[in-house]
Amino acid sequence: MPGRRGLLGGLAAAALAAGRAEAMTAERGTGDLGLVVERASGSVQIVETTGRSALGRITGLGDLSHASAVFSRDGRYAFVFGRDGGLNKIDLLQGELNRRVLQAGNSIGGAISDDGRLVAVGNYEPGGVRVFDSVTLEPVEDIPAAYGPEGAARSKVVGLADIPGRGFAFSLYDADEVWTVALPEGGAPEIRRFRDAGRQPYDGFVTPDGRHYIAGLFGEDGLTRIDLWHPERGVQRVLPGYGRGEEPLPVFKMPHLRGWAVAGEQVFLPAIGRHELLVADRWDWTERGRVAVHGQPVFAVARPDGRQVWVNFAHPRNDVVQVVDTESLSVVHAFTLGRGVMHLEFTPRGEQAWISVRDINRVEVFDTRSLARIASLPAESPSGILLTARAGRIGF
Amino acid sequence: MPGRRGLLGGLAAAALAAGRAEAMTAERGTGDLGLVVERASGSVQIVETTGRSALGRITGLGDLSHASAVFSRDGRYAFVFGRDGGLNKIDLLQGELNRRVLQAGNSIGGAISDDGRLVAVGNYEPGGVRVFDSVTLEPVEDIPAAYGPEGAARSKVVGLADIPGRGFAFSLYDADEVWTVALPEGGAPEIRRFRDAGRQPYDGFVTPDGRHYIAGLFGEDGLTRIDLWHPERGVQRVLPGYGRGEEPLPVFKMPHLRGWAVAGEQVFLPAIGRHELLVADRWDWTERGRVAVHGQPVFAVARPDGRQVWVNFAHPRNDVVQVVDTESLSVVHAFTLGRGVMHLEFTPRGEQAWISVRDINRVEVFDTRSLARIASLPAESPSGILLTARAGRIGF
Repeated sequence: MPGRRGLLGGLAAAALAAGRAEAMTAERGTGDLGLVVERASGSVQIVETTGRSALGRITGLGDLSHASAVFSRDGRYAFVFGRDGGLNKIDLLQGELNRRVLQAGNSIGGAISDDGRLVAVGNYEPGGVRVFDSVTLEPVEDIPAAYGPEGAARSKVVGLADIPGRGFAFSLYDADEVWTVALPEGGAPEIRRFRDAGRQPYDGFVTPDGRHYIAGLFGEDGLTRIDLWHPERGVQRVLPGYGRGEEPLPVFKMPHLRGWAVAGEQVFLPAIGRHELLVADRWDWTERGRVAVHGQPVFAVARPDGRQVWVNFAHPRNDVVQVVDTESLSVVHAFTLGRGVMHLEFTPRGEQAWISVRDINRVEVFDTRSLARIASLPAESPSGILLTARAGRIGF
Repeated sequence: MPGRRGLLGGLAAAALAAGRAEAMTAERGTGDLGLVVERASGSVQIVETTGRSALGRITGLGDLSHASAVFSRDGRYAFVFGRDGGLNKIDLLQGELNRRVLQAGNSIGGAISDDGRLVAVGNYEPGGVRVFDSVTLEPVEDIPAAYGPEGAARSKVVGLADIPGRGFAFSLYDADEVWTVALPEGGAPEIRRFRDAGRQPYDGFVTPDGRHYIAGLFGEDGLTRIDLWHPERGVQRVLPGYGRGEEPLPVFKMPHLRGWAVAGEQVFLPAIGRHELLVADRWDWTERGRVAVHGQPVFAVARPDGRQVWVNFAHPRNDVVQVVDTESLSVVHAFTLGRGVMHLEFTPRGEQAWISVRDINRVEVFDTRSLARIASLPAESPSGILLTARAGRIGF
């Protein structure tokens, strides 16, 4: 990839000039910081959850539709993955774009290794995973998602997640495969392929302990589970045929599995194209129940204590967030917030929920005990909200 | 408590002059910072886990035997609880003592509320809990551990832990009780007493989801469990009589339950006075097995992915750390490190283990995959190692 770095230098310098946030205090803790993605304007806001305020805005980040982010292990830097293949490294203390590389033509999320040294990006075009040094954003490894006769085809990569041992797991949408890769320091990548992993895996995640990789399937009802402690056991299908024999609804928006919800002994998952959550046993992944909800769920996120799962929905029912009680499996509260509820994020100990409402250009913050609104921040078409506490978690 | 603040002013000023660390960079992330307690010298070192180095030392913190610490929600400040009743607030970025109050005569650990606003300290003398504003260290609440006829007696308080909802749970060693207290903003404290909680609860902790408070019992074999989602269900005894009919060994050091280990579906607990770990089912707390280990376990800590539990031991067998595989329940590795292995702490995603070895004045850092030593830092009689990632966790 020669030439890219040269090009980059110019791009990055221009962005740095354009992108610096207004007023930042560089001397402060980073544990209560986070980002709000402003997708329409290609910018992010830096926010803090102690005073619940915005600290500044960084512009010039490219196409941020479907953007996500991960954080450096010290909590100072965010790596923002744009849809245009842009990998942006943001300095949350200085409030500026530190580096930017346009690493592919079309990408869909990324992850950071457990040691914090490697940032990996999942790409649609060219299909595969590219890995970068987290300090410099220099390329470290290029892993084409090759499949088919003589490995001539390239699959879109989705559901990229970090796994323990300086590794990543991801799904090949076109190849019906899941791969894991370990990247030992100074050694060659160790790739393991799981074939016949189910039809069209469209997203994936690892459980909070890093043990199981789960991929949702678009081409069939059900999910795929791989025990990373025992890869020799291969692929296991879970919740197969959960909508079998029923007329599927049109799918307005694909749910996001990364908003998985492990609550106590149960896992809550959005059912594709159905107005319900699937409830599975955390350990054997058999179905334990369903929860009828307001619309097609997009994110189902557990409050960190696991007592509630908060859910948002696809168009046209995307103005509501419902709160599900995980003991009774019933809806105990609903907020009507305005069109385009895009994402929600809890503070790490669960006392606050931050919710982005795109069409009213607000981020709403709630006390999760009283359910009272405790802050409302202006934002330009906000989508993802991501807090630095993710840096300390496996699979975020 | 008038007068104390006046006294404090002078004390704090002197300590500030004495206690500032040498060379600190105030502009840096705080997610990879931590503390090493140097008990003999009443000092702490500030360390960072990315380059694995010491950043400075802060002195003048009083008696730090059995000291522990919690962190502010932004990761900038540590609250260090000394045995002498001292509550020290340390600025990890400036490398200095920010505030100090001598809040009791003899104390044993503390906790910080889920919203980060309240710091609570458990005291032996006078027996009870005192609560302080986390910014100013001004007193907010005083909760005497009153019991017996007309509430005239005061119990030692142990096992103080934060619980969701701006609350704390703790055990009354002399009263055989567990209490919870919620401290609503602007409202009166809501105290709930659980009587007959078992003979001499000597330590306690909450599970990672904040749902169950568990107290270890010194006066009988077994533990006490309270479901905080259902306090009306009262106290439940678990693992009763685990050593019944067997001759107890002399107890060289009380184990620390705060080093609990939840790994997958199992909980690993040190057995008092026995060379074994107790293994219980995570959900119903029935016994699932035991692991024979090198000595009387003190801390049994799960690697964050739950695949291993690392254990240290009481005198005279305190030169070893054993690694237990949580699937096979067997010891798979042992490190011999020198006399006085006092504590161990994993980085939040589990790739490193930091271990304090008192008598050789070292902190040893291991790669948890290769088990290779990757750093060795000098420290004066190090004991507790505490990383800022605790700020984002319930029960730490």
